Parts: sequence; structure tokens; C-alpha cells
Amino acid sequence: MKNTFGQSLGVTIFGESHGTAIGAVMDGLAPGIEVDEAFIARQLDRRRGLSTVSTKRREKDEFRIVSGYFEGKTTGTPLCIVIENEDTRSKDYSLTKDLARPGHADYTAYMKYHGFQDYRGGGHFSGRITTPLVAAGAIAMKALNKKGIYLGTHILICAGVRDRDFGDYQADFPILCDNIISMLDDEKRQEATERMKDAAKDGDSVGGVLQTAIVGLPAGVGEPWFDSFESVMSHALFSVPAVKGVEFGEGFGFADMRGSEANDCFTMNGDRIETVTNHNGGINGGITNGMPVLFNCVVKPTASIYKKQNTVDFIKKENAELQIKGRHDPAIIGRAAVVVDSVTALTVYDMLAMRFGTDYFKG
Amino acid sequence: MKNTFGQSLGVTIFGESHGTAIGAVMDGLAPGIEVDEAFIARQLDRRRGLSTVSTKRREKDEFRIVSGYFEGKTTGTPLCIVIENEDTRSKDYSLTKDLARPGHADYTAYMKYHGFQDYRGGGHFSGRITTPLVAAGAIAMKALNKKGIYLGTHILICAGVRDRDFGDYQADFPILCDNIISMLDDEKRQEATERMKDAAKDGDSVGGVLQTAIVGLPAGVGEPWFDSFESVMSHALFSVPAVKGVEFGEGFGFADMRGSEANDCFTMNGDRIETVTNHNGGINGGITNGMPVLFNCVVKPTASIYKKQNTVDFIKKENAELQIKGRHDPAIIGRAAVVVDSVTALTVYDMLAMRFGTDYFKG
Amino acid sequence: MKNTFGQSLGVTIFGESHGTAIGAVMDGLAPGIEVDEAFIARQLDRRRGLSTVSTKRREKDEFRIVSGYFEGKTTGTPLCIVIENEDTRSKDYSLTKDLARPGHADYTAYMKYHGFQDYRGGGHFSGRITTPLVAAGAIAMKALNKKGIYLGTHILICAGVRDRDFGDYQADFPILCDNIISMLDDEKRQEATERMKDAAKDGDSVGGVLQTAIVGLPAGVGEPWFDSFESVMSHALFSVPAVKGVEFGEGFGFADMRGSEANDCFTMNGDRIETVTNHNGGINGGITNGMPVLFNCVVKPTASIYKKQNTVDFIKKENAELQIKGRHDPAIIGRAAVVVDSVTALTVYDMLAMRFGTDYFKG
Amino acid sequence: MKNTFGQSLGVTIFGESHGTAIGAVMDGLAPGIEVDEAFIARQLDRRRGLSTVSTKRREKDEFRIVSGYFEGKTTGTPLCIVIENEDTRSKDYSLTKDLARPGHADYTAYMKYHGFQDYRGGGHFSGRITTPLVAAGAIAMKALNKKGIYLGTHILICAGVRDRDFGDYQADFPILCDNIISMLDDEKRQEATERMKDAAKDGDSVGGVLQTAIVGLPAGVGEPWFDSFESVMSHALFSVPAVKGVEFGEGFGFADMRGSEANDCFTMNGDRIETVTNHNGGINGGITNGMPVLFNCVVKPTASIYKKQNTVDFIKKENAELQIKGRHDPAIIGRAAVVVDSVTALTVYDMLAMRFGTDYFKG
Repeated sequence: MKNTFGQSLGVTIFGESHGTAIGAVMDGLAPGIEVDEAFIARQLDRRRGLSTVSTKRREKDEFRIVSGYFEGKTTGTPLCIVIENEDTRSKDYSLTKDLARPGHADYTAYMKYHGFQDYRGGGHFSGRITTPLVAAGAIAMKALNKKGIYLGTHILICAGVRDRDFGDYQADFPILCDNIISMLDDEKRQEATERMKDAAKDGDSVGGVLQTAIVGLPAGVGEPWFDSFESVMSHALFSVPAVKGVEFGEGFGFADMRGSEANDCFTMNGDRIETVTNHNGGINGGITNGMPVLFNCVVKPTASIYKKQNTVDFIKKENAELQIKGRHDPAIIGRAAVVVDSVTALTVYDMLAMRFGTDYFKG
Repeated sequence: MKNTFGQSLGVTIFGESHGTAIGAVMDGLAPGIEVDEAFIARQLDRRRGLSTVSTKRREKDEFRIVSGYFEGKTTGTPLCIVIENEDTRSKDYSLTKDLARPGHADYTAYMKYHGFQDYRGGGHFSGRITTPLVAAGAIAMKALNKKGIYLGTHILICAGVRDRDFGDYQADFPILCDNIISMLDDEKRQEATERMKDAAKDGDSVGGVLQTAIVGLPAGVGEPWFDSFESVMSHALFSVPAVKGVEFGEGFGFADMRGSEANDCFTMNGDRIETVTNHNGGINGGITNGMPVLFNCVVKPTASIYKKQNTVDFIKKENAELQIKGRHDPAIIGRAAVVVDSVTALTVYDMLAMRFGTDYFKG
Repeated sequence: MKNTFGQSLGVTIFGESHGTAIGAVMDGLAPGIEVDEAFIARQLDRRRGLSTVSTKRREKDEFRIVSGYFEGKTTGTPLCIVIENEDTRSKDYSLTKDLARPGHADYTAYMKYHGFQDYRGGGHFSGRITTPLVAAGAIAMKALNKKGIYLGTHILICAGVRDRDFGDYQADFPILCDNIISMLDDEKRQEATERMKDAAKDGDSVGGVLQTAIVGLPAGVGEPWFDSFESVMSHALFSVPAVKGVEFGEGFGFADMRGSEANDCFTMNGDRIETVTNHNGGINGGITNGMPVLFNCVVKPTASIYKKQNTVDFIKKENAELQIKGRHDPAIIGRAAVVVDSVTALTVYDMLAMRFGTDYFKG
Repeated sequence: MKNTFGQSLGVTIFGESHGTAIGAVMDGLAPGIEVDEAFIARQLDRRRGLSTVSTKRREKDEFRIVSGYFEGKTTGTPLCIVIENEDTRSKDYSLTKDLARPGHADYTAYMKYHGFQDYRGGGHFSGRITTPLVAAGAIAMKALNKKGIYLGTHILICAGVRDRDFGDYQADFPILCDNIISMLDDEKRQEATERMKDAAKDGDSVGGVLQTAIVGLPAGVGEPWFDSFESVMSHALFSVPAVKGVEFGEGFGFADMRGSEANDCFTMNGDRIETVTNHNGGINGGITNGMPVLFNCVVKPTASIYKKQNTVDFIKKENAELQIKGRHDPAIIGRAAVVVDSVTALTVYDMLAMRFGTDYFKG
């Protein structure tokens, strides 16, 4: 039970918000994968968010690939990404370190680590630790693209505003990369942005739902039981901070459907077997059927809000009041979308490498 | 990527619907756990369903524990449960073996196994394979009970009928064991049963939502990232056939909440730290906080319906029509509840054994 | 930490000497592998030993493949082999159950399992549990053969008698299958057999060294560090009862060599890169180099001897004397050879399936 | 199949000889373990060797613990050690990069990584990658000591010189730390050092045998089959560069013994169950029996020798001659001893944490 994920491609992340450095090790990458450092940097920028509504802490996120990387390509040996921490105003946190911030892991970290955890800025639980995950995901994503597999995540719902559904995937994915608030519809994006600002003015925050599509996956990926595609994918998705629900295809909507509505009928499209509808999100019996894989993640509202909250001092064991200061997003969902893309890319890479071998993605 | 789950306690299931036998191996059980064969038998009965609305195929489910079991207790070595297949009317399936049943794994199994799969009755993808999983779960559940940990699953929604929420857990759990349609409210149960019968009359089926509660879990269980409590639990839950979504606490409801509503404020209850609300389902930052763990699973409508459906012959690669015969439940959700309980028990056992050691549950 | 081995192909064994049944689950086998039941039966016969010098307990070893097997071939789903126990004279063991047999696991099992272990006939530690391992290995071996990979194990040394080295592998391997005492040289075999009989007459036992060769393995298999070919192979080999040492190529002989003697110089053999010598047993830096892989295992003398031994009663905590009765081999090395072949086949299968994908061995 | 080892405590190493940095991530450490940086530095010094007979490349090995470390103690989250590479004379290697150095991994790395490997100075296969392993091992070793478990490795045989056996472990272990050539007997150490120098003068190298003892381990650690103590320990030991054989207790000496000599008789020592002899190296049936655990590793002679050697150019596919220059040890066995100690500490830590839980070593 560890902070490592994957079987053929294992990813381990390390670091604390205010420690010396954060990073990730990717163990099992195929040799010869071209590493696009500009693309990694761009994904890191997206993760940080650049709009007026996101956190004011600005790390340059200057990453170094310190191993497994030679002459612009992966070597096939463990690739380690290191990002030094710089802008760490630790004093922000020390005074309130024994006050459990509601919605955060302060208390549970204390119970798990017996008080030895690094409490500064959320420590190992900080959203900042998603930075190396995004860098790792960027490498995996490019490897998938070379195999004709593409993926993207948009904000389906935020603060009560619902984006349009995916249409033409290949046209839609680039839209998502160009916007911090990754909605497909310009007006909805505008509207959602306004509502985020409203919440920020109230010292409050909002949540939402992310929708992810993977296209180009072959049929036959996944295992019948414990390592069903949904099992492995959800395992990774629930690692993304603030994700509290994952559904595939119609998901919870299935509760209101009858079998005759829920079943996706098969049909020939020329030589190719397809389904007429895609309620099951491209997966039958835990295994991909060749249709686009579709899933949604719910992202709870940012736990850090400026409103005064009741809580406890878990050392003194007494009730207390807490007023959070510092720099916090009223909506992390736009940034979470980039993290969801990243863990999706890493997970799909791993499942394909288990199925087709470690050389499947080699240069 | 295998059909084995767990780290300290690994569970492997095997078998096909119409093969020689099905079963499970539990590797890593503590020694000295009392095995209650009557309880196992009762759970198997619950899984089979006995009401008028469930499948007419009746296996006696006579299980044998063939290893790891001595003088009524576990030995600590791998415990294997074997259930012989008997009532296998294979001829039901042979004629339509190349027709992909919509919503089933026939086509994806063909793509994964290249035509070598046992197609009879869904083969390895049959719901019957949950039988040994339920037997294994029954053993784990009793071990948890000895440690003061209890769990139960009710049908929160079925065919549009919504059950009441959990109230007093210790009073509610026994109700669930006594009813095939595991709803807490008698009237709702009656109403849902009627609607299932309506669907059956139409040759159709219905889905629903299951809600599970785990009480008595200590704070501090789960890992910060990839092996968060939600990650590991959802991994197991998505292995249950027909589960297409998993949410913890408010789950997808978080999308419509603000942070000030979503956060669970901490408070002292005497000496004990609790939260005033439990929107986060007992988990903060992937780690249990000592409150009841709550999650929901959506179960899609039974894929086997009697209505004629369009599909393809995946060998001939041509369109076809399919009329499913045989014995099928209009709603598998009641039976799925027992399976969800079982994988939950196995998963919680494993997480505790990783944390507290393999002897934690010893007799 | 479990009784399961392998990553792409996981093998779990279960059972006790005098329990209901023993068996193995193979999870991850490619679909379409032809299962040669006659070959499995023959390997089981070899494991039992049929000569006058091996144990007198005769189980028919009638195995059933109860899952993952359809129309003579693997399906790709977990394949379970079950062997019922029949000839179990439990009374042989009950009186001395608290006396730790020297060289056996009675005391360590007691310490690990807190007294809940099945003590009859060594329980889970009995050599009989190698039966399903040999059956599983036979399936893997045939799959390797289809890919041009062959392997065999001979008794290099037994009771002071040294067999000749491997010569022409393809000619030598069949010799080993035809003889219970798997030596290549007829005279040496005769001599070793005599010495085993001498030891038996003295109520004593002998050990020896096994040498295994794998031919046909491609270069490039294995990982640079923790999953070096030697690491993974030795992990499996030390699971074979009585193996107390494993060495590759010259092994412990390297201690007396200089670098100029130990290094294998490379040379072109036509278009093919080979080494002039093969001191390193076909492995450089943990990765195969395309030469035959060669390793030795030492097998300690059978722990069950008829001579009276000093020991303790671990319940009463007092000194005691022990006279072992029953049926025991004066030399298990011939039978161990079959088990070594089997775990070798399973391990090589797994490493290749990780490297080249789960379909590599498909029919 | 990855470069990660361990179940409860996973260790991943990364880096290349001439890359940017090398390091290790320890995932699963208990919280509150005191980290003794001076002890780590001392172990790194020992690994580098400081005598006249070891390599002249001098890295300062300045390590940074960049995560999982707070106020002098482990936090319980992944602890990453980073060591920057500095003194990298890459030009030494570029001219001969396609010539397979005999005894090295150049050719096998080429076959595995398809030419994308970092060839400079052995790349990922360099002995330098053991540096973070030693740092990680130092942390584990101190945690073991707190639990009363001590271990040490001496050079049993080097260049034909045999050290005395272990006597009083607690007196002997410190001797080993104080000497680069870790022999217990002063005269033998002198003699072995001379022979190493002789080999160096000849442009050649020598190998030897290491002997390791672990004292203080409780009885009952290890699994009956695939994760026997020997299996897991040997898995780790064969990861140490140049180790080509591992034996427990009498090891290959068992081949010449009879059962009556090989069995360790049990006896009461006051209240404590012990064995009279310890031929089995503290392990019966794969599980520790409470006696000192003893094993030997053979270390082949340093592959880098100055004598001219025949080899091939694996790109041009033609025969070639090779004269290795640069800085190389005539005997790496003294340095290997420190690495063996380190992987032993990490492996024992992991096995105990699986058995007794992740908090077993907490501060």
C-alpha cells in the first residue's frame, strides 16, 4: 500500500509543499520515447492556472529530468523529474498547525503519521504535489499520441453551469488546451468564470464535474474482474485531490434507465463493429470495446475558504475557530482537469504496456 | 494486471459459468480466524436471491473449503473455496455464441481472448463467479466484526423508488440481511418490488443505486495518493459486475455545493474528535477520519432482457437480431448488494492488515 | 507477502498434505495455449519418483483443470488445477505434533501461525504441495517450447558423485525425462543410486546439486536492478523445498578467478553475437545475452531421517527425543529436479510476457 | 517488472553514471524514524572505499533528502534522496561506446533498450547507482537497530584468502565498519590487500565471497513458498552488481552432507528454543527460527580490467579489441559488502513491516 501506481509503468511521486523538492519517478517507460519539454512546460502552466481566478502562489515549476533521459529521448531506465521548491512562505502555516482545516487532511494526516507529518502548506497532501504527476503524464500522453490515442478533459459542470457535450473529439481537444477554464462552449465558460468570481467575493468556493474522453483505444483492453478498465482507471482518478466520485458512460444516470435503454446495440460500420449508442462509455464487462471511453469525475469545492469555520485543535483536543488566509483558488476544477488528463494518460499507457509489452511505445 | 486483488490479503477468483468448478483463493488470512460456515451459506443464499423476481437457475452453491482450514479455523496458509458447477444447460447458449449480447462482454471477451474464451453462459464474465467472492467476503466480514467493524449495503434507489437513509447503523444492518430486496423502508421495498415485476412483464430490466456504510473503522487508514481509501475501495467496487459509478459521501452532489457547505467542520464529542456533518463520507485526503465511511455504487439495469435487440455476429461480421432466452433477473441490484458487501469486507481487511500487520485479525 | 508469484502470469498454490485438496491457480495465461494433459501426468509421475529409492506414499495425483480451460486449450482466464487428497494416514503424525522435527518447518510454522497450522504431514510445508506447481509448470513449459525455448535440469552432484556437464542440450534434455535419477551419465547414475541406497540403509539421507540450462532465450530479458534475471529466477528457486543455494554460471567458483578468466569475451559467430566462454551463465548486468542460461541449486539432504534425533517439545518447552517413522526418500534431489524445471518454466514465461505482452504465447 | 523493490517499504532507484543526478525513493517508511545523516555519510564513504586499492574517481556523494523528512525525522511519506553527479568525464567513454566490454552490460543493455540507453560510464548499470541504495539502507539499518536487530557483512574469502568466521557478533560488527577491507582478522586483511595489489599490477582483478549475519530477528518471519525468507532476500541480493551466487547456512556445502549432519537439532536454552548447530542459517521452511540468519554471496572479479580483451562492435557487427582505460577497482568486494548490508537492511525492514504493520518502526 504505497504511493506508487502501475504495473508495467510504475509512477512514484514524492514531496511536500514546503519541503526541499518534489518530483516523480517513472519506472518502466519504453526506450526511445521523444520527450517534448515544451509540452511538459505548457501542461505545468495549465496546471498552475493563469487566469485571475486561480491561486496567487506562483512557482516557476522549473522541472529537471535528472535520469532515464539521454539525447532528448527516454532511455528505458527510471526517469526522474525533480522540481525544487522555492516560494515557500512557511510562516503562513505554523501558527494554525494544530487546527484541523475542514475538508483538508490535517487531522487524518496527524492520525496516520502520529504527528511526524510536515504540516506546512498541507505537506504531502498539497495540490502542489500534482505538479510532477502532470509532468509525468505529459510524457505518457505524447507516447499515446504516437499510437493514435488521444484524450482530453473538459469541465462539464461548474458552479451550476453545464458545458456542451463533446462533439468532434479531434476538434474539441485543442480547445481545452487553449483555455484555463476548460469548457468547450465560450459562453458557458464566461458564465462559469463569473460564478467562480462571485464565490470568491463571498470568501467561498465552488465544485463541478469533469468529463474525459479517450479515443483511439483498441478493443480488448482491461481484465474481467479486479483489474477491469473501470477498476484501474478509477483507482488512479480517486488519487486526484478533491475527486469524490467517478462514473463511466451514463454512470449514475443508469439508475433511472431500463435495460432496453441502457444496452448499447452493436452494428456494423463497414467492416468495423461499433455500438449505435455509447451509454457504457466504451467498456463492456470491464474491457474496452473500441468506442470512445467516456467518464466523469466530480470535484468537490476547494476546501480552503476564507469564511470563518468551526473546528478543533487536535493536540489540545478542544473546539476552535479557524480563519484561513493565504492564496487559494475559488475553483480548482480547471486545474484538476489537467491532473485528470495526466493520470488518465499514465494509466492507459500502463494497461497497454501490460497487454502489448514494454516495447509497445518504444521509439 | 490480473484477477487477483489485495496486498496483505490477496484474493484470486477463478471459474466459468459452465466449467467444472468455480472458486477463490484467499492468500494472507491471519491464522485462527473462526470460519462460520452457516454464515457463508446464508450469504450465498442472499447472493442467489430467493424471491419471485430473481433468476430461476438454482445452484445449490455447495462450497467446500479445501485448504487453509483446520479444526474450524483458518491456518494462515492459502484458503481455497471450491464450488462445483452442476446445473449447466449449455445448449441454451451454443446457437447464439457469435452474437454479441448488448451490454454484455461477449464481444470484448472475443477481442481480448481471440476466440478462445468459454462462451457458455457468459463464461468467466458470468455473475455466477461472484459466488466464491461472496464466500470469501463472508470470512473477512466475520473477522472485521471481531474487531468492532461492521458494514452493510442497502438499495438506496431502484426503479425510481428511493429508500430512506441509514439511521442507527447497528439497528439497520440486520434488516438488510433479512430481506432479499435490501431496502430499509418496508413500503419502499414493496413499491420497488412491484416496479421490478412491471419491468419483468415488459421483458425489460431496471437498475439502481446501492449505499454502503462501514462503521467502527479507526482514523488514519488509507494512503495520501495512489492508494487513497477511495482509490483502493473503488478499484474493488468496479470489479462488481454492472457497477458503473462510485461516489463517496455527497459524491456527484458536491458539484452543486459551495465549499462552506461541503466542508465537514470538526468538533469535540467529549474526548473524541468528530465532524458535525459527514459530507465527505468519513474520508479526508484519502484517509479515514473515524466517522462512518459512506459510498454509493450505481448498478446498471440487467443487460439480459427478453426484448428483441439489434446486434452483430462478430465472426461473420454482419448485422443480426437477438432474442435472449433463459433465466434472468429483471433487477440484479439486490444480489449485487451482497457482492458489494463482500468486496468491501475484503478490501477493508486488506487495508487494515497492511497497516497493522498480518496478525491483526488472528484468533 | 504472499504465496503468489509472478507479475504478468501469477501463480498461487494452496493446500496441505492431509487437507481436502491441493492445487494452483494460474492467472494471466495467454489464450489458446494447448494443454497436453498426458505431459502433465508424466511430469507428475516424475515428481513422485517411481524408483525403489523414493517415498512409498503413492498418490495417484489425479488432477482436474476446473477453470480457464475449454476445448483443450487455455481460455486466457484463471486456470485452476485441483488435486484431491486421498491416501492420508493422519494418525502417523498426531502423536509427535509438538516435537519439532530437525530440518523441518514444524517449529517455525508454529511461531508464524501461532499454533493454528495444520500439523499433519508437514501441512502446507509438505513436498506434496509441489504437485500443482509441477502441473502448472508443465503448461508453461509447453508454451515455451512453442517459442523455441527449451530447458532441463540434471543432478550435477549427488552423494559425492558428479555427473558430466551438459553437452548437446537438445540431445541431453530427453535423457533427463526418461530417468528418475536425472543424471546424464549412465554409470554415474548407477553409482549415485547405490550411494542413496547406502544412506537409506543407515537410516540417513543425502543431498546434492542440480544444474539447469535454458536454451533459446532471446537477449535482452531481465531488468538492470531489483528485477534482474538472477533476482527473479532465484526468488522462484528458493521457493523449492530444500534449496539452500543458487548460483549462476561459475557461481561460487568466481571467488577463485581473476577478471581476465571470469569475463566472457564476445565474438561474432557469422551474423550472431556470442561469447567465447559462458562463465556468466548467459547473463550480463542482470539481462540475458542470448547464450544458454545456466544455474545451479543446492538441495540439502532430506530432513526426514530414521535415526533418532534430539529436539524439543515446543508446547511443553522441554527437551525430547524423536524417531521419525513413515515413508521418506533418502534423496529428494531427483524429484526436486522436476520442481526446479517447473518453477523455471513459470518464471521464464512470466518474464517474457512482461516484456512482450500477454498475447506473446497465445495460440 | 521494475526497478522497485519491496511491498510495505518500496525502494525505487534512479540515475545514470554520467546523468544529471542519481537517487532513491523510499515509499512506506514509518513516521518518526530518526535519520542519522552522519551515519549515512559514513556508509557512503565506506561504499566509495578510501584505501589505495580502490577506484580513483572521487565523488563527494553529497546527498540531499528532499522529501519525507522534517525536523530530523521521517514523516511517513515518500522519502527521496538525490545526489547530483559532478565529476563526469564523459569523453572517457564515447569512443568505445559500441564495443561490448566483457563481463559488463553494454551489449545486453543495447539489446534491451534498442540503442537508446545512456552508454556513458555504464549508464544505469554503473556501480555508482548503488550510492542511493546505501543511503536508503543506512536509514533502514538504524530503524532495525532500534528494534534490537543488527547485521554485518565481512569478506569471507578474497583472492584465495579466507577470513575467520564470525565469533561474537556484537563485537565483530564494529570491526567491519572501521575497515575498508572488511575482514575480521587483521593478518588476513593484510594478506588479501596485498593480493589485490598484485592483481592490480597485472592489470587484472579478483573476486570473493561475502558472509552476512543478521542477529535479533524474531522467529516466524517469511512465507512458506514463493516469499520464503530466502526467496525475498536472494531477490534483493542478486540486485547487487557482480553477485552471482547466494547460499544460506552451509549452502553448497549441504551437497556433501548427510541428513544427520545437516539437520539442526533443537534444544532448550533456559526458556528459549534454540538449535544446537546452525547449518540452516536460521531458516527452516523459508521462515526464521530465531537463530542468527547467515548467508553468503559470491562477488565475481571486477569486470573492468586493463588487460587487452577480445570483443565485438555490436553496431558494426564485427570483431574488435578493447583496452579499458579510466579508474577501476581491482576488487569491488569491499565496497559490495556495504551494498549487501544495505539491501539486507531494506529487505528485513520490509518483511517485518509486512508482518507487524507499517507502524512497527515508528518513532
